[in-house]
Amino acid sequence: MESIGKQEKKYIKSLALKKYRDRERLFTVEGEKSVEEFLASSFNVHKVYYTGEYDFSNRHPDTKKITLMDMQQISNLKTASAVLAIVEIPSAEIKAFPCNELILALDDIQDPGNLGTIIRLADWFGINHIVCSLFTADAYGPKTVQATMGSLTRINIIYTDLYPFLKSASGENHIYGTFLEGENIYETELSENGIIVMGNEGKGISREIAGLISRKLLIPAFARNAAESLNVAMATAITCSEFRRRNY
Amino acid sequence: MESIGKQEKKYIKSLALKKYRDRERLFTVEGEKSVEEFLASSFNVHKVYYTGEYDFSNRHPDTKKITLMDMQQISNLKTASAVLAIVEIPSAEIKAFPCNELILALDDIQDPGNLGTIIRLADWFGINHIVCSLFTADAYGPKTVQATMGSLTRINIIYTDLYPFLKSASGENHIYGTFLEGENIYETELSENGIIVMGNEGKGISREIAGLISRKLLIPAFARNAAESLNVAMATAITCSEFRRRNY
Repeated sequence: MESIGKQEKKYIKSLALKKYRDRERLFTVEGEKSVEEFLASSFNVHKVYYTGEYDFSNRHPDTKKITLMDMQQISNLKTASAVLAIVEIPSAEIKAFPCNELILALDDIQDPGNLGTIIRLADWFGINHIVCSLFTADAYGPKTVQATMGSLTRINIIYTDLYPFLKSASGENHIYGTFLEGENIYETELSENGIIVMGNEGKGISREIAGLISRKLLIPAFARNAAESLNVAMATAITCSEFRRRNY
Repeated sequence: MESIGKQEKKYIKSLALKKYRDRERLFTVEGEKSVEEFLASSFNVHKVYYTGEYDFSNRHPDTKKITLMDMQQISNLKTASAVLAIVEIPSAEIKAFPCNELILALDDIQDPGNLGTIIRLADWFGINHIVCSLFTADAYGPKTVQATMGSLTRINIIYTDLYPFLKSASGENHIYGTFLEGENIYETELSENGIIVMGNEGKGISREIAGLISRKLLIPAFARNAAESLNVAMATAITCSEFRRRNY
């Protein structure tokens, strides 16, 4: 068992805040399975802390075996898991986006859990790129990382000003979004490739972005007095399922 | 502003625990919109506590205007909302289930958030009945109630031993479930009515229940190294969407 000082603990805990993640370009990953996925991925893992339960000493050049109590102090979970890794945030250069793929664009998704679930859905549906507006929740925050269950290692996530991005992409791509006044998604022709925009939890797709949508879709409710709206992660699941089904 | 004693606070807080909800047959609902939905529903609302922000004094015969600090003490939310209602748990008699409907059956769904989301999905897709195994999370727990966003008022939820229920229903109904070795849901014929079984987050559908499934379905992943599994709420969204789409 190695000791871990006050300063080191404070440093690790500071990465729960975006301000410090942005400065250090580092984030934390917790849980054996998630850490395993990051170790096996192209992500640059800086350090792995582990308790007695699993032996990670041979898995990485820089590991530290610590007490459960110390682990609880550096963890962002109510009940700490046996492993915590410090991982580098990949560089966020905006690559030219491939026109021959299906891409998700997120217009100010606020909830870290929703963002994590959407990243996991993208992984499931073979969507490799997610373009996030600058006010979308941070993909490297502890709650989002937790919710992605390792899918974060397989998805290319880029934060950028969404309007100019969509504007420049709109010439060659269909841009889809869900709206109350859209066409029934079950009966609309959907292209194999294109960009699907998902809107903010409370406000939906912003007016500015709505002007760039070339195909407005509606997910119809099946009940008379149904829930007013679907949660955005549910809407993403249904929308992606429809796109992929057509081209299965 | 009325005062609220220590005993009264303790009593309200006790309803966060299933043990006390079962004994009192009462649960709490928080948030203006959710409380509004319960007041407008067939549920029997016993009492409404509210702070200054909204005036609920004329909305119910038994209301109490309390301080924000008192509200925070009886609330189960990190930040209390302006309204909290004490509501009766509807009697859980097992009615004969209609054969001409689509029904959800939950086999030990553990996570209150998942259960709440599934109740909301049922509402969206016009599914009126959910049959829960006895080890499924409690629909009247604070986290589930919160996640349903009022949909709980429109869905008939019954807790029962799932095996005999499905066994007796299996004669007249198709019973569907999702499995890794199932038929591609996008290409399988789906009946308008029947029972869709959703399994536990970690273990899926139990072996005993699996023996009663007449149609095994698979939601295919579209990526090579995709996420191992879909969250059960996502799988419910995609499955219900497929069933309803066919008979839209």
